Amino acid sequence: MKKSLGAKALALPSPVWVVGSYSTDGQPNIMVVAWGGICCADPPCVAISVQSTRLTHANISQCNAFTINVPSKDHLLATDFLGIASGKNTDKFLVTGLTPVRSEIVNAPYVKEFPLILECKVRHVIDLGLHTQFIGEIMDVKAEEAVLDHSGWPVTEKVNPILSSACNRSYYALGDCLGKAYSLGLSIVK
Amino acid sequence: MKKSLGAKALALPSPVWVVGSYSTDGQPNIMVVAWGGICCADPPCVAISVQSTRLTHANISQCNAFTINVPSKDHLLATDFLGIASGKNTDKFLVTGLTPVRSEIVNAPYVKEFPLILECKVRHVIDLGLHTQFIGEIMDVKAEEAVLDHSGWPVTEKVNPILSSACNRSYYALGDCLGKAYSLGLSIVK
Repeated sequence: MKKSLGAKALALPSPVWVVGSYSTDGQPNIMVVAWGGICCADPPCVAISVQSTRLTHANISQCNAFTINVPSKDHLLATDFLGIASGKNTDKFLVTGLTPVRSEIVNAPYVKEFPLILECKVRHVIDLGLHTQFIGEIMDVKAEEAVLDHSGWPVTEKVNPILSSACNRSYYALGDCLGKAYSLGLSIVK
Repeated sequence: MKKSLGAKALALPSPVWVVGSYSTDGQPNIMVVAWGGICCADPPCVAISVQSTRLTHANISQCNAFTINVPSKDHLLATDFLGIASGKNTDKFLVTGLTPVRSEIVNAPYVKEFPLILECKVRHVIDLGLHTQFIGEIMDVKAEEAVLDHSGWPVTEKVNPILSSACNRSYYALGDCLGKAYSLGLSIVK
């Protein structure tokens, strides 16, 4: 039996990503977003949603660029702090001890310590209400060598990303691998 | 040391959601998407990306509505099958044994057996290239009573959603709860 909960932004799971941007005076800033996702394969694009009051909103609007930095579980405390403090009055790199690196491809900084980085140029800006969706074309993906397999491809378990749930506003670890996509379901018709 | 991997749609983790829609002749169809995310709090909106060749693309374009159905880990085999078969030549409800329910709010079917349902009206359609992004306003959320706590709110662990990774095209279970957002990070400045 289904129960109606009303019109709510309630779906799960969500990623936990850190968005890097430069302010108008060139200061690197980072914030955490849970609302985003890959949205196109060709050209490769990713979407993130940011409230208009955020420093990151002004930064991306000015620079037309951002990075997505995927934190590992090891970076959980620093990542959560990025969602509490504002870059308007806090140097979040300084407080967390994370290191900004200037992207050579887009006008945005990325986080040196995080295992997987997407460097994005803004292609679409959609004002949805409380949030603005920025769709970025992924110009390059960079990964820490330590998370790559012998063929140079990132290993999910080594990236060890964090998830979040809008139900209880909590973080979750990645659980067990359940099997390959486009494969498990064949058993239904066998 | 970071290694460049090129321009790829490579970010993780991704949700595993099943999208419900009606075809022009009124047949209910479901497909699986990994590319999507909540994108606005007010009005509550969610985005999904679908290739233009898919039946779901034609269906949503015609009906201006879709549902997002969050499967539990228990529904993994059926969910994966939805990503293998096409609704153009397969009654995916029939083969999987899942049950379509006509939404009373939007012109789309939802999956009776899945624990969490979002009923959406299309507000924006953004042609990105290989994929089209459909942004839906969430008109209602419905949850199975068995996944609700005593206050009527969904429990993340009871919904028990599936994740996917673009790195190895595999499914993952939800892992351990790591703590509350906007709380853990305070320890950094204490």
